[in-house]
Amino acid sequence: MRRIRLIIEYDGTNYVGWQTQPNGLAIQQVIEQELYSVTGEEISLYASGRTDSGVHALAQVAHFDTNARMPADKFAFALNSGLPRDIRIRYSAEAEEDFHARFSAKRKQYRYTLQAGDHAHVFLRNTALHVHGRLNEDVLHQMAKDAIGAHDFHAFMAANTSMENTVREIYRSEWTREGELFYYDVEGNGFLYNMVRILVGTMLAAAKGTLPPGAMQKALSSGRREDAGPTAPAHGLTLMRVVYPDFDTAEIVQP
Amino acid sequence: MRRIRLIIEYDGTNYVGWQTQPNGLAIQQVIEQELYSVTGEEISLYASGRTDSGVHALAQVAHFDTNARMPADKFAFALNSGLPRDIRIRYSAEAEEDFHARFSAKRKQYRYTLQAGDHAHVFLRNTALHVHGRLNEDVLHQMAKDAIGAHDFHAFMAANTSMENTVREIYRSEWTREGELFYYDVEGNGFLYNMVRILVGTMLAAAKGTLPPGAMQKALSSGRREDAGPTAPAHGLTLMRVVYPDFDTAEIVQP
Repeated sequence: MRRIRLIIEYDGTNYVGWQTQPNGLAIQQVIEQELYSVTGEEISLYASGRTDSGVHALAQVAHFDTNARMPADKFAFALNSGLPRDIRIRYSAEAEEDFHARFSAKRKQYRYTLQAGDHAHVFLRNTALHVHGRLNEDVLHQMAKDAIGAHDFHAFMAANTSMENTVREIYRSEWTREGELFYYDVEGNGFLYNMVRILVGTMLAAAKGTLPPGAMQKALSSGRREDAGPTAPAHGLTLMRVVYPDFDTAEIVQP
Repeated sequence: MRRIRLIIEYDGTNYVGWQTQPNGLAIQQVIEQELYSVTGEEISLYASGRTDSGVHALAQVAHFDTNARMPADKFAFALNSGLPRDIRIRYSAEAEEDFHARFSAKRKQYRYTLQAGDHAHVFLRNTALHVHGRLNEDVLHQMAKDAIGAHDFHAFMAANTSMENTVREIYRSEWTREGELFYYDVEGNGFLYNMVRILVGTMLAAAKGTLPPGAMQKALSSGRREDAGPTAPAHGLTLMRVVYPDFDTAEIVQP
């Protein structure tokens, strides 16, 4: 039995998310079916974390165990020949037997993309949130800074979920702009369910003037979901990078 | 009666091309239907040129005549509210009554995108041609240079078409590379049917070693289609810019 790890890129538009669900096609399920075609084994695939319906990945990491004798780097080619074009294996290699895509992960980076302009760009329609009107950039920069550090992010977790420890550490949280495009890059040791989308929804509401600029700090201190802003739509969000003690996707796929 | 001109962006993946056809949905047809919804008039739309099925545009130009009293810049918003998300009007304004999107055009720019690497990028699957193996970059650069200037491009026209004058002038013809991505940018005073795709097919065949590097010059002198390479697939091609004596799309949409 060998453990293989993968770097996976996907366009989440046509899927119910990473995790297999009763109500539609999941990315996990599509790859597990292809693993069955390639190996003849019923294989379970473990990812660094779930992504929601409509969320994308440039570099998701997953692992599986197999008895198949194929050279580890050939799994990417073998799987890609059967996978739909909106899912690609960018890399496959043998991992230590104690490597776990979820539990060994030390750090992740997500990017959220906004397009602020009159007309939504055709080629970004599935990967950027289009917003009308002006955004206060100073507010975006200040609030992004407020999120850096170790905080209890309880207010930034989907209301219907529970989690014992809601403290996470954010190493990087910043907006950059190129013309109409605003990129929010956030790196941390872990993220609660919907956390990035609620962070973005809070900053966006303040940048449009419907929440005060102090909303980030207030929600961080109160821990109350209602002090944060709405959950930004899924399609602007992309998982960019996962870092492990012995492995960094950024060495294979540029974030 | 006023003449209105539009800059249109589209993803050609799901269309039979610009021009209305019996065998599927055309971009022209979709916008004309929306013009009817907005104005109540049966309007004919004239573009700077046809694009084939699968070819994209960042900045196609088209004009139409209307008696509708809507302010010219509002057509973009009115049309976009009903158009599918893979077609956007980026700009609408009143034009002189003798402006003609096709006959007044002085210069056009196309871009063809290749991705050379082991695994096709998910987010470029509909806009770049994925090629395996190595490309000889020196050959690409030299052959692109050979195309610059005024030439008879008869060899670079789809075999089943006819055209009296097959001389065109190319002002810019160059490849640039960013990692696995190769961009071919070509500007000229006009292009024959399939001309850019045959230019790319010829350079690509030579860069892979299946045609000699002299193929460009040979086909330019002989004028024989069989001396040029195959027609590169449509989906790597995008119309980037159209220039008129009084109007340049690059001032509105960055190519």
